[in-house]
Amino acid sequence: MARGVTAAQGFRAAGVPAGISAKPGKLDLALVVNDGPRFAAAGVLTRNKVKAAPVLWTEQVLTAGRLRAVVLNSGGANACTGPEGFQATHSTAERVAELLGCGAVEVAVCSTGLIGEQLPLPNVLSGVDKAAGELAATADGGSAVATAIMTTDTVSKQDAVTDPAGWTVGGTTKGAGMIAPSMATMLSVITTDAVLEQPALDAALHEAVRLSFDRLDIDGSMSTNDTVLLLSSGASGVEADPAEFTTALTRVCQDLAARMQADAEGVTKRITVRVTGAASEDDAVVVARTIARDSLVKTAIFGSDPNWGRIAAAAGYADAAVEPETLDVTINGVLLCRGAVVAGDRAAADLSGKDVLVEVGLGLGDGTAEIRTTDLSHAYVEENSAYSS
Amino acid sequence: MARGVTAAQGFRAAGVPAGISAKPGKLDLALVVNDGPRFAAAGVLTRNKVKAAPVLWTEQVLTAGRLRAVVLNSGGANACTGPEGFQATHSTAERVAELLGCGAVEVAVCSTGLIGEQLPLPNVLSGVDKAAGELAATADGGSAVATAIMTTDTVSKQDAVTDPAGWTVGGTTKGAGMIAPSMATMLSVITTDAVLEQPALDAALHEAVRLSFDRLDIDGSMSTNDTVLLLSSGASGVEADPAEFTTALTRVCQDLAARMQADAEGVTKRITVRVTGAASEDDAVVVARTIARDSLVKTAIFGSDPNWGRIAAAAGYADAAVEPETLDVTINGVLLCRGAVVAGDRAAADLSGKDVLVEVGLGLGDGTAEIRTTDLSHAYVEENSAYSS
Repeated sequence: MARGVTAAQGFRAAGVPAGISAKPGKLDLALVVNDGPRFAAAGVLTRNKVKAAPVLWTEQVLTAGRLRAVVLNSGGANACTGPEGFQATHSTAERVAELLGCGAVEVAVCSTGLIGEQLPLPNVLSGVDKAAGELAATADGGSAVATAIMTTDTVSKQDAVTDPAGWTVGGTTKGAGMIAPSMATMLSVITTDAVLEQPALDAALHEAVRLSFDRLDIDGSMSTNDTVLLLSSGASGVEADPAEFTTALTRVCQDLAARMQADAEGVTKRITVRVTGAASEDDAVVVARTIARDSLVKTAIFGSDPNWGRIAAAAGYADAAVEPETLDVTINGVLLCRGAVVAGDRAAADLSGKDVLVEVGLGLGDGTAEIRTTDLSHAYVEENSAYSS
Repeated sequence: MARGVTAAQGFRAAGVPAGISAKPGKLDLALVVNDGPRFAAAGVLTRNKVKAAPVLWTEQVLTAGRLRAVVLNSGGANACTGPEGFQATHSTAERVAELLGCGAVEVAVCSTGLIGEQLPLPNVLSGVDKAAGELAATADGGSAVATAIMTTDTVSKQDAVTDPAGWTVGGTTKGAGMIAPSMATMLSVITTDAVLEQPALDAALHEAVRLSFDRLDIDGSMSTNDTVLLLSSGASGVEADPAEFTTALTRVCQDLAARMQADAEGVTKRITVRVTGAASEDDAVVVARTIARDSLVKTAIFGSDPNWGRIAAAAGYADAAVEPETLDVTINGVLLCRGAVVAGDRAAADLSGKDVLVEVGLGLGDGTAEIRTTDLSHAYVEENSAYSS
């Protein structure tokens, strides 16, 4: 059974090598087509004030709440490329529209790769032609999309959930670094054949993103290109309960986020920071994110060092209510700090495995949140110091 | 001529090996004594909500605006050590007070090192006795203090300025990582023989710190122990103009901050991020700090890669007014991005040297600020993954 964008009925997809990426033969252009009968769509885009051309375009087309297709490329972000870059995005959407017999305003565009270089437009357009000729409703079609959007990802990422009522939601994502609040440098396309009105789709997507991609923070950087799109074909003919749909969509997004965490640049440890007892959920998110971003915490965990003092210090400078008197830190089940005072032998916490659970109790209220992150390793430095040149 | 805490008249100092540090024979306890005739003092302490015992103590004694002495130790932060840790700080101040014949409330205490371990109090107290016996008004006394407070620092750090009017301000600092807003994991003691009222001293110190230590951001982490103290003996007998004193003090603090930047953990590049044209000075600081903290910017510069797209992206997610239309990025004098659009060949920017100047023009107003930081290197990861265990 297909797991990605072709898991739901009513979708065809393709991924082709278009010669955009510097890597010869790499699949680097993808097309996802909604064959209907319904075309409602929703999206969540980067909050970065410097937005790539495809983000500016997609922001506009999403105002109608309706999409026939999404065209995506790796090999270039088409960000900081000015009018020429925006024209390239527009031309790409127009070519897709011509081939599908729809309007360009029904075509979203996503790009990922290096900032500040123009895309090779002739290659992009001939790639669109090629992809349109290879569209398939099969698992292969979905998998080709998942592969074509990869940049520094080492594995493609797909997931799907089928509800007993008869509808399916599935999707794909890419992203391995520069992942932060608002999902930096990630692209995700999710499809469903459930019947839902556009406002319900939109609400479900925002809730699912809030509890998944927005709770993943690899390096605190936010990209110019982040895009998550949800397309619904209604092809199952089954009307979905909005709450049940939101739950299923959240599960898919959380699974995709976990795959991004596991494949993050240079990762040697998968870290979950769980904050409980915060004065509010917002405070719990702020404290967990501050710990998850702290370079000293991340390097200590890379070194398998249960240096809880750095965790307590990070909690202490978070912009949230924190009282030393009720601040507890537990690493991999071992309570090391109670009331901001040493409470155990740090050697008792075993960090030799790949998964590390950092639990911070604030003792102030009922606010709870988890942020997933990774360690800060030599490989992270290596990969990111040699990315563009 | 002495450059550190004994540069000004009226001060004696010593640094001794007290057996606090794990490194045998390392100087790890320091004492700075103000012999008057005046004793006005001011301080700036960490804003971390988790404060080390010596910070809690020093916060209290500073309320009187008067200090006879400062006792400092490396080899342990005495943070997250509970009542036992606070008692150790108190006993240390009392021992100093006994030896000098003053009150314990006239003695500030500073500690630096690993969080969450009790100090070996007998060693600290016998170290105090020893240091009191070796107090000297010479350059050697000041240098011993500079050496005794080092942790992962590779060189000691001192500076002094003498005003033609006849007064001197000089000091020392330590800190090499975990340096961020509010000067994380740094200790600094500055002395002057100028005659100034306490409120003028206090105002001068806050202004100088704002423009120096607070503009240094190595890794975004804020410590439990940050302390900057300013002691005045008035021994020159010369009344200083508050504005001139503030200028001289700022110069000393900026010099000490530059030394910390140059000696930061794992540094291979010294980076200055200069933001101009911001809507306000606060906005300029926020944008410069966001760029200075961005792991992708820091790894790119480690790789000598003028990846200006990451700089533009970081400016774009800063919590400040930023308009892509007027966003320019210049690296080492080469304009690479104008109006958030590629404007030059990145290869023209030479990053092979040790100093990198990142200039970001926002085109919105007159706000200007500089933040100093360093690259994110293999050595940073190495040093911080192996610090405590």
